[in-house]
Amino acid sequence: MVDFVVFLKNVLVVSLAMNIGLIWKISYNNEETLSSKWSSWGNLQQKLHFHAFGCNGDRREEEEAQISKNTQLLSTTSSASASAPAPPEIPDGGESVVINLDHGDPTMYESFWKQKGKEITVVTSGWQHISYFSDVKNVCWFLEPQLVSAIRRLHKVVGNAITEGRHIVVGTGSSQLYQAALYALSPPNAPQPMNVVSAAPFYSSYPLMTDYLKSGLHKWAGDANEFNKEEPYIELVTSPNNPDGFTKQAVVKGDKGILIHDLAYYWPQYTPIILPADYDIMLFTVSKSTGHAGTRIGWALVKDREVAKKMTTFIEINTIGVSKDSQIRAAKILQAVSDSCDHANQKEAAESFFDYSYKHMEERWKKLREAVNKTQLFSLPSFSMETCCFSGRTFGQLPAFAWLKCEGGEVGDCESFLRKHKIYTRGGKHFGASSEYTRISMLSRDSEFKLFTERLPAIVS
Amino acid sequence: MVDFVVFLKNVLVVSLAMNIGLIWKISYNNEETLSSKWSSWGNLQQKLHFHAFGCNGDRREEEEAQISKNTQLLSTTSSASASAPAPPEIPDGGESVVINLDHGDPTMYESFWKQKGKEITVVTSGWQHISYFSDVKNVCWFLEPQLVSAIRRLHKVVGNAITEGRHIVVGTGSSQLYQAALYALSPPNAPQPMNVVSAAPFYSSYPLMTDYLKSGLHKWAGDANEFNKEEPYIELVTSPNNPDGFTKQAVVKGDKGILIHDLAYYWPQYTPIILPADYDIMLFTVSKSTGHAGTRIGWALVKDREVAKKMTTFIEINTIGVSKDSQIRAAKILQAVSDSCDHANQKEAAESFFDYSYKHMEERWKKLREAVNKTQLFSLPSFSMETCCFSGRTFGQLPAFAWLKCEGGEVGDCESFLRKHKIYTRGGKHFGASSEYTRISMLSRDSEFKLFTERLPAIVS
Repeated sequence: MVDFVVFLKNVLVVSLAMNIGLIWKISYNNEETLSSKWSSWGNLQQKLHFHAFGCNGDRREEEEAQISKNTQLLSTTSSASASAPAPPEIPDGGESVVINLDHGDPTMYESFWKQKGKEITVVTSGWQHISYFSDVKNVCWFLEPQLVSAIRRLHKVVGNAITEGRHIVVGTGSSQLYQAALYALSPPNAPQPMNVVSAAPFYSSYPLMTDYLKSGLHKWAGDANEFNKEEPYIELVTSPNNPDGFTKQAVVKGDKGILIHDLAYYWPQYTPIILPADYDIMLFTVSKSTGHAGTRIGWALVKDREVAKKMTTFIEINTIGVSKDSQIRAAKILQAVSDSCDHANQKEAAESFFDYSYKHMEERWKKLREAVNKTQLFSLPSFSMETCCFSGRTFGQLPAFAWLKCEGGEVGDCESFLRKHKIYTRGGKHFGASSEYTRISMLSRDSEFKLFTERLPAIVS
Repeated sequence: MVDFVVFLKNVLVVSLAMNIGLIWKISYNNEETLSSKWSSWGNLQQKLHFHAFGCNGDRREEEEAQISKNTQLLSTTSSASASAPAPPEIPDGGESVVINLDHGDPTMYESFWKQKGKEITVVTSGWQHISYFSDVKNVCWFLEPQLVSAIRRLHKVVGNAITEGRHIVVGTGSSQLYQAALYALSPPNAPQPMNVVSAAPFYSSYPLMTDYLKSGLHKWAGDANEFNKEEPYIELVTSPNNPDGFTKQAVVKGDKGILIHDLAYYWPQYTPIILPADYDIMLFTVSKSTGHAGTRIGWALVKDREVAKKMTTFIEINTIGVSKDSQIRAAKILQAVSDSCDHANQKEAAESFFDYSYKHMEERWKKLREAVNKTQLFSLPSFSMETCCFSGRTFGQLPAFAWLKCEGGEVGDCESFLRKHKIYTRGGKHFGASSEYTRISMLSRDSEFKLFTERLPAIVS
């Protein structure tokens, strides 16, 4: 503990890569006029949303009916029912249909899980999981022991993170864990709030999550590339990065920094696994690893016991723990993923989750690049090939988001340009980058992705 | 919306009555020494915990083994297993066993739910509830429609709150909803943070939840009885009150206030239901109504659409929604409670949940009062009798906590006095009250409650 600050310099963490611009579109349309007392608040809220979730404040009313129509696709399978609903179909491939790829709702994986049977069905009796407590001997007293086992096993199977000697803290999604990490790492009695930075383009929700409560503990200090104050700071490193998919390292050269690494996308369907990550704080989430965003389960691997305790304290105060039902379910899902990877357990050489998801992502990226290559209007990042230690495959990044650039300077704002063609994406400015760029979710259902790759090459300037 | 501030004056809200002093006991024992940079932070954390969860910072080491032994009882049933574990037994009734009644873990209800069969078993397939979204047409877009139905039905069956014309916001427990309400009701650009007050004795976590992030939006301003500033304020009204069980009304006489009502205990096992509550914001939680604390599901009934939207925004930023798995489960549990109340649905006149829980609480209070009457050392509050519109029974309050007073001035600090006899409770100072008082959970398992009522009368000054 004596070398605590030095010791935190290579920390990992913060799975925040969730994207819900759609929400704003629904919630903030047709805003009623607030009284004078409240209008400034409403404006701030709107501004914060605009910034964080990347949705346009200038949404035209005539578009709303279509947004509503389209977004209902998202909720089709969210209610429990006796049998699996059919995947929602896009009514037609015409220009009239809105394609919403702003958010990162990972519904792509639903089709894999529908193939699975009772082995991943969770049955919960009425008397189970009644207590607040899960394991009072654990630093994270609300963490279910079976989730601990499932997390440690999966990281060992995949080889993407070291769990030995790490404390696990569970969160209601990794957003909560990001905030818990800020709380744990920001000194309470400093003369100024702790600076929080991340290299642009950075995940659009970081600034909002840092500043929405006007905390005296921490404040968003912008692009890490431009940070040169002689003050303490926390640097967020998201690798692979949201929005652009590149592998990232810390960029600030100062000696007063603490690092948080967000490894939400460090899974073999998105990137070659090169080494088991070995940072001081590493954040993961089931939302992006297995696609179960609705469970709201994330986890942090934390080297230092005191940091883990303070993160636990944050979650204790914030929500008095994390849903036991979702923890139990997440444990079963992660075990199923490990089982699917374990050839000894495979029946009839069934496809593993990562085989399925890698092939799916590879196919989508191939189709997207083909679509982009049919026009002169757009470009995509290029990624260098590396060999994945998990799969043995050699490939370049297959990011969960496409970071599309509108070329030639004619188009200007890429988000607005695509919006005219009823393709909703999240513009570069929300990520601290140029509006020539826009971020596009690659994790939608097949029908929506297909429509997108059909419409894109048909666009003319 | 024009009269928004006036309109909020009789608001309800905030189910925060959860009690986890135990956590501190486990997490904060044997603290390692922090580096000089971190020690002040650790101290604050410890202080905050001390204040909020009401645990003693001066826990003696020799007590720790027993605490650990005893608290393991709490986690016995928290892991899913194929069959119901037997209720944990207190090893013996001797003075050597710690009885921990500091927290409010509602394990008392476990025995009721064990009687229930498959009708409340939840079965979740691997593909279900994958999306972030539940109902994009709802202000609270992450709220499962079946939970909406279950909440509205139960309030109608019990008659304890009006839901017509109310928006429902779901939270990860009502702690999150309390913070969401503060966020929604505090203007963002005021020169000073909004004052937040509650009449002492108030729930011990209110101050911490208000101040832990050093928010510029709101600050804890103490006992509402002593608040006389000519400034805007939010007053929390918890009724029945935690810790003392009395019915409460707002006490501040100012004209710049907004009220939040915490109705976590406004259920017929704790208090006669007199009227359907009709405030602007009303907070409830399954933790205290049905005993399912581990699901972390609370809900707010909110009259004003803008407030509901802002509360939703808070939860969006904080945790990007609320566990779908727990929402689905909570819906099933609440429907089961309504079913049990609906005589038409009862098979063989099975006991309703509220009949069971009322009888259990009545029996416990009878035994506690008998135990207290055997000594001259203690006293308990007296409650006036009223007739419950739900059950037709006439009774006085049967609170989830006993607010015990050590009489005669000889004892001094009541919490410390009981601690010497290995009964762990939460002292009055944590609730903004005199240390002559201490709060005792009435919701533990039968074995622990029995041991408590045997030990209490044996205590001599």
